[in-house]
Amino acid sequence: MTDKTKLLETFPNPNPERDYTIIHTAPEFTSLCPKTGQPDFATIILEYIPDKICVELKSYKFYLQSFRNDGIFFEAVTNRILGDLVKICKPRYMKITARFNTRGGISSDIIVEYDKRK
Amino acid sequence: MTDKTKLLETFPNPNPERDYTIIHTAPEFTSLCPKTGQPDFATIILEYIPDKICVELKSYKFYLQSFRNDGIFFEAVTNRILGDLVKICKPRYMKITARFNTRGGISSDIIVEYDKRK
Amino acid sequence: MTDKTKLLETFPNPNPERDYTIIHTAPEFTSLCPKTGQPDFATIILEYIPDKICVELKSYKFYLQSFRNDGIFFEAVTNRILGDLVKICKPRYMKITARFNTRGGISSDIIVEYDKRK
Amino acid sequence: MTDKTKLLETFPNPNPERDYTIIHTAPEFTSLCPKTGQPDFATIILEYIPDKICVELKSYKFYLQSFRNDGIFFEAVTNRILGDLVKICKPRYMKITARFNTRGGISSDIIVEYDKRK
Amino acid sequence: MTDKTKLLETFPNPNPERDYTIIHTAPEFTSLCPKTGQPDFATIILEYIPDKICVELKSYKFYLQSFRNDGIFFEAVTNRILGDLVKICKPRYMKITARFNTRGGISSDIIVEYDKRK
Amino acid sequence: MTDKTKLLETFPNPNPERDYTIIHTAPEFTSLCPKTGQPDFATIILEYIPDKICVELKSYKFYLQSFRNDGIFFEAVTNRILGDLVKICKPRYMKITARFNTRGGISSDIIVEYDKRK
Amino acid sequence: MTDKTKLLETFPNPNPERDYTIIHTAPEFTSLCPKTGQPDFATIILEYIPDKICVELKSYKFYLQSFRNDGIFFEAVTNRILGDLVKICKPRYMKITARFNTRGGISSDIIVEYDKRK
Amino acid sequence: MTDKTKLLETFPNPNPERDYTIIHTAPEFTSLCPKTGQPDFATIILEYIPDKICVELKSYKFYLQSFRNDGIFFEAVTNRILGDLVKICKPRYMKITARFNTRGGISSDIIVEYDKRK
Amino acid sequence: MTDKTKLLETFPNPNPERDYTIIHTAPEFTSLCPKTGQPDFATIILEYIPDKICVELKSYKFYLQSFRNDGIFFEAVTNRILGDLVKICKPRYMKITARFNTRGGISSDIIVEYDKRK
Amino acid sequence: MTDKTKLLETFPNPNPERDYTIIHTAPEFTSLCPKTGQPDFATIILEYIPDKICVELKSYKFYLQSFRNDGIFFEAVTNRILGDLVKICKPRYMKITARFNTRGGISSDIIVEYDKRK
Repeated sequence: MTDKTKLLETFPNPNPERDYTIIHTAPEFTSLCPKTGQPDFATIILEYIPDKICVELKSYKFYLQSFRNDGIFFEAVTNRILGDLVKICKPRYMKITARFNTRGGISSDIIVEYDKRK
Repeated sequence: MTDKTKLLETFPNPNPERDYTIIHTAPEFTSLCPKTGQPDFATIILEYIPDKICVELKSYKFYLQSFRNDGIFFEAVTNRILGDLVKICKPRYMKITARFNTRGGISSDIIVEYDKRK
Repeated sequence: MTDKTKLLETFPNPNPERDYTIIHTAPEFTSLCPKTGQPDFATIILEYIPDKICVELKSYKFYLQSFRNDGIFFEAVTNRILGDLVKICKPRYMKITARFNTRGGISSDIIVEYDKRK
Repeated sequence: MTDKTKLLETFPNPNPERDYTIIHTAPEFTSLCPKTGQPDFATIILEYIPDKICVELKSYKFYLQSFRNDGIFFEAVTNRILGDLVKICKPRYMKITARFNTRGGISSDIIVEYDKRK
Repeated sequence: MTDKTKLLETFPNPNPERDYTIIHTAPEFTSLCPKTGQPDFATIILEYIPDKICVELKSYKFYLQSFRNDGIFFEAVTNRILGDLVKICKPRYMKITARFNTRGGISSDIIVEYDKRK
Repeated sequence: MTDKTKLLETFPNPNPERDYTIIHTAPEFTSLCPKTGQPDFATIILEYIPDKICVELKSYKFYLQSFRNDGIFFEAVTNRILGDLVKICKPRYMKITARFNTRGGISSDIIVEYDKRK
Repeated sequence: MTDKTKLLETFPNPNPERDYTIIHTAPEFTSLCPKTGQPDFATIILEYIPDKICVELKSYKFYLQSFRNDGIFFEAVTNRILGDLVKICKPRYMKITARFNTRGGISSDIIVEYDKRK
Repeated sequence: MTDKTKLLETFPNPNPERDYTIIHTAPEFTSLCPKTGQPDFATIILEYIPDKICVELKSYKFYLQSFRNDGIFFEAVTNRILGDLVKICKPRYMKITARFNTRGGISSDIIVEYDKRK
Repeated sequence: MTDKTKLLETFPNPNPERDYTIIHTAPEFTSLCPKTGQPDFATIILEYIPDKICVELKSYKFYLQSFRNDGIFFEAVTNRILGDLVKICKPRYMKITARFNTRGGISSDIIVEYDKRK
Repeated sequence: MTDKTKLLETFPNPNPERDYTIIHTAPEFTSLCPKTGQPDFATIILEYIPDKICVELKSYKFYLQSFRNDGIFFEAVTNRILGDLVKICKPRYMKITARFNTRGGISSDIIVEYDKRK
């Protein structure tokens, strides 16, 4: 899979003097199962405390859309989204929660955190 | 954008001898996107522990309405509302939660806190 | 406004040997706005840990009903209910949560606590 | 109020050979009360059976947004939206349901229908 | 009980050329039980097709508030509201649905209709 | 089982000149299973169009409570309540819906109607 | 698959003189997919107007449980349950609604009716 | 009131080597008000960490049913259930939450805890 | 766009002697907007009365997935799915309801029917 | 009961360098009551922080299905699932929550945890 971080645009945090939380909830994430080629669907919840940089919302939408035809496992895609966003934003704190729709009668959530302050 | 704090009226806290919490939930906030000019819609939740001064509810409604035709970003407007109210009320604690409606399939919450006691 | 505490009846706590919690939720509270004379509506949630005395439920209903034609602000009525009940019950802990219906598109919660143990 | 129908764009119905129903639900409508100048908020539900012409969705969004700073009553705006759309689309059937948020503790729905076939 | 119809104001139906429906939902109705003096609480849903006259919303709110300290039974108040509004508005159709809160573990709805066209 | 209709009190219909509907919803009905002696629980919904007589609410509550320690099947108790109320009220129309809680993983509704007008 | 109707017990309708409706909702139905051997799960809703005979609830539970290890398609099992119950009960009317859980991201309902009166 | 603990049967905890939590939620509890004789209804939630002994579910159901015709106050019955179960099970931790239905427009929860480890 | 009907497999209706209804609800439909290339998301509800032929569920899933990277408008895709399924199944009745997610703050439903019996 | 751990397949944790959480929610668990032979139904929620090994989702589904015709008590099956998964995955943390459907009017949750780090 190619580097997707170049899809992400940023803007300077307008209030870096205080900690505050930004949550973006994207219920229309879809990728492919690398085993079966079948589509997977998830809600991706990004929660972070920005440091000097915020992620620009429209570019983040395009970033998530870029997984549409990629084959990638639940655990891998969730960890990758965290990794890409931490690299670009260098936030004080970040959490990705991915809630995947039912497959074989079982739904799955993957929750990954990054904390610069620890 | 002009100073909006003069729109805010206050009254003396009737029970300054104890800490207690006031929550005002305003589901009819609307402003404009500074990039596209398109309207944004949000629910603004103000939670605070008053010190000597409480914000008067009707003037707070007019204050929120004054953003109706202003172009302002999600992060900026949430931080600004906190700043204006802290300046006027000097509360012991205050939190603004702004829940913005879906744009491009993604909804956004911005959560900003002020704590005099820390 | 006259003293309403005489409306409140009590009974001895049947289990004073342990801390336990009693919650009474009253969704039919109504009083008047002292400015406009318009009726206000709220749900009053009383939560407490009794010490030697419990508040009798029927008398508590009559106590709440006695505000029906009184003009009183949100913050004042919530603090007053706490004050009256603490005076009568002398509880180990007490919290009043008043959830007022929407006025001018904004709903309001007032949350007041008393803690003898602190 | 100026003629707003020029804001509405259309496209040819791709399946005029059969009756079918299109519903567009717009929860972000806002206008002003002509008496008080206060903002009103509504969900506008457009349901219609197209004949030769369909209303284009993006232009319909701009049409609804154009009421943002107009002073207009509930009954009038609902009837006007129906009138404008019937004039432009000449549908076989059309219904506008406008659900206005609570004002003074009372919420209001206005439901207007047009039926060419009757 | 005095004549309350003088509290109701009206305005000319802006679109008498077509049948359309107006629904006003008022969840804050309260009156007294004529037997016990205890307060009753209800949601009053007014649905009507206006002829030449519409009921003005604010005056309708004051009309409903005027029952606050009246002792009146469920069936009687619902029929009376219908009677008063029909007298004032002379609508093509009108329905009052009154949903009363639980009393003695039982909730009650009263539904009354008027149809000029039958 | 003894005659329970003597528990039911009535009052004259205040508006016999028009058809209107009264619904009483009682979620606290309980009786015993005649086979096992185990308690059954149901919500009883009484809907009727009164003729000359209405059923008094408090006496109806006592009537329903009188089944508390009776052993009676779902179908029988629902038909019996309809029979008793028709006998006492002689309504224009009446329907009893009894929604019984889950037994052995299966919940049951019994719906019985009487229509004098047919 | 063997004849399962012998599992079903009945009792005489206590009120054959009138039409009334019985609904049994069973959310714990499970059988096997005949193709894959994988378990299927459904809620089975039986609605009927009895004639001379009612189905006994406990035996109906055992009848539904008897499909636990049978391989049978959605359409076939729904039609079969209707057929077996009509054969045993000879009702005036009967409907089976089977709501099957999601398989491959798609949930399925099968609705079958029998009407002696038509 | 007689000793009800003899109704409760137990079985040895199959996994005493670790702390784990058992929650039994019983929405069909009913007893009588000792003042008025009127039935009360509640949901009883039992949560505990067993030590050497678990309470057997069916006997617990019969234990709860044994209050059906007893006159007992909210606070007393909740404390008594805790007391009886602690005596029989000697758990590491136990909590009883009793949620009583609305009486006079007010619903009540009583929450009692026992903690051997403190 | 190529012919997709060859993706659809069928099986003989096991009960052609009676009318019955099959509903398949697929909440994971996605295609592309032909104007912007942006992904659209919808729930597709297929409801039909089979004649001699039923659509096989797994092949129907693959058929819906085949639109994943096609650019096609809301109205066109809904009409096309109906057309393809009618051609393959020749049902007695069929309805497609497509509920599209919010775009620009407006959600859209398209409802298309086919009725052989009319 | 035979050893079921051989049904469980695993894969290497793709991100062992950080703690993150995986939740699999399986609402279609069914086993048999060892006393009555009657089927039990539960939702099994598996939450864990993987160390070097993750459990493969499809094999976990087959593992849960293998209890379908086993007689086993609520407490025992929940503890056993935890034991089997800890043995195979050696996780940093694991919790099993089993929510069993209502039996005799009472629903039951069993919650078991394992924490390597304590």
